[in-house]
Amino acid sequence: MTKVTAQMSVSLDGCYTGPRDTHDHQDMSGWMRGPEAPGFFRVTRWAVDAMAWRERQGFAGGEQSVDSEIVAETFAAAGAYVMGRRMFDAGEVPWGDEPPFQAPVFVVTHRPREVLERAGGTSFTFVTEGVERAVELARAAAGGKDVAVAGGGELLRQVLAAGLLDQLELHIAPVLLGDGQRLFGPDLGLGAGEGVELTPVRVVETPGVTHIRYTVNGRSKLVLDDRGASGDLVASAGQ
Amino acid sequence: MTKVTAQMSVSLDGCYTGPRDTHDHQDMSGWMRGPEAPGFFRVTRWAVDAMAWRERQGFAGGEQSVDSEIVAETFAAAGAYVMGRRMFDAGEVPWGDEPPFQAPVFVVTHRPREVLERAGGTSFTFVTEGVERAVELARAAAGGKDVAVAGGGELLRQVLAAGLLDQLELHIAPVLLGDGQRLFGPDLGLGAGEGVELTPVRVVETPGVTHIRYTVNGRSKLVLDDRGASGDLVASAGQ
Repeated sequence: MTKVTAQMSVSLDGCYTGPRDTHDHQDMSGWMRGPEAPGFFRVTRWAVDAMAWRERQGFAGGEQSVDSEIVAETFAAAGAYVMGRRMFDAGEVPWGDEPPFQAPVFVVTHRPREVLERAGGTSFTFVTEGVERAVELARAAAGGKDVAVAGGGELLRQVLAAGLLDQLELHIAPVLLGDGQRLFGPDLGLGAGEGVELTPVRVVETPGVTHIRYTVNGRSKLVLDDRGASGDLVASAGQ
Repeated sequence: MTKVTAQMSVSLDGCYTGPRDTHDHQDMSGWMRGPEAPGFFRVTRWAVDAMAWRERQGFAGGEQSVDSEIVAETFAAAGAYVMGRRMFDAGEVPWGDEPPFQAPVFVVTHRPREVLERAGGTSFTFVTEGVERAVELARAAAGGKDVAVAGGGELLRQVLAAGLLDQLELHIAPVLLGDGQRLFGPDLGLGAGEGVELTPVRVVETPGVTHIRYTVNGRSKLVLDDRGASGDLVASAGQ
C-alpha cells in the first residue's frame, strides 16, 4: 500500500543546512559561498560517498556500502515525489536534462506552469491547490509505490502538520552545527503540552551516520507521570 | 582514565523540556503545571520505567530491561558530577536526604555556600570559580571513574563549548515537541562554517528510545566537497 514517506539528513542538533541565506542567488556558486552550504554539505556528505547516490547523479565511483544500500532502497521505494517550490527553483538548473528522481514530481507552488517532462522518467507537475492536493496527485501517480517528500524542510513540516506523513527516516550526521535551519520547530502547529508521537522501526548505524526510521503515529497529548513513585506503593501493598 | 561525560534525554527535535518556564516556582507542583514539565516528562519517561532508575530514587518496581542496564551503567561510571545552579535549586528539596548521585557533586554557582553532606555518598560542593574549576575539582574527586555532567542543558553546553567534554550520550525519545528548550543552539559559540565533530561509538535501540553514544572530537571547519563529481573524472581518466 502506498505510504507517504520523508527522509532527511540532519545534524545531531537537528539542522539540515546552515543558517538561512537571505540572498536570492542567480547561480549555485553564489549559494555555495553563502551561510547554508557548509552545514548542508556536512550533513549530506555520507550520501555523496555512496555509489547509489552518485549513480543517480550520473557520476561514477563511490562506495558500495550500507549507506549506499540505504540510498538505493530510498530511491527504489518512491513511485512519485512531492517537492517544495524553493527546492525546485534551486534544483531546476543543476539537475539538468535527466534529474535523479526518475518518477513524477509534484511541486507545490503558487505559480501555475506547464508540466515539465525530463529524460529518465522524471516529470515536474506544478500544483497550485496546496499540499494535500499535491500528495493526492502523487499518490495516484505512484503506481502502488510510496509517495516521497523530496524536500525541502518547510514542505516536510507542512505534510507532517497536515497529518499526511506515514514514515520519517532521519540520517543523523555526527556533528553539531549550533546554528542553522532546523527541520522541526514551532511551525508544526502543536498546542501546549502536545507532541507528535512516533515509533522507531529500524536503526542502522554506519561510521558516518545513524539512520533511524520511524512510523508516524500522530499528534497526542503529553501526559505527566508519577516518576516511578507508584512502584513504592505497589511494594508497600505487597508487604 | 577519567573522561568527562554527559548524557541527556531529548526529543527527536532536540528538546529536553517544553518551553522555558519564566516563573520562579516555590515548589515542584507549580513547576509541574508549567510549560516545561510535559516535554521533560515525555523525553525522560523511558528512564522512569527502568528498575535501575527507580532504585536510585528509592522506589521499587520498574523493568529489568536494556534501558535499565543503560541507567545502571551510567550511574556506575560516574565517580563525581558537575551540575548547574538551576538544576541544583530545582532538585535540592525533591532529592531529600539521600539524593540519587551517591558521589561528590560540584555545583557551578555565583553564590558561595558550605559543602552540603547528604546520606549515601552524595555531597554538594559549591564552586564559584567557573565551569573549568568545577570540572577540575570533580576530576580530582572521581577516583579514576568518570566526571559526569549531571545537567542541566546550559551547563552541558558550557562544558562542551569550553572543549572539556569527551563523551556525549543522547537518549532520543521518539516524539516531536515542536517547541521547547533545545539542548544545543547558537550559544555553543561556533563560528560561521564551523561545527563540533563527533564519532558515534555505540547505538542501542529499544522500543521506547534510541541511545546513541558519541566521542567528542572537537571544533572543526566545515568544508565543501564536489558532490561526487570527481568520481566522474576518475572514471574518465581510466577510460
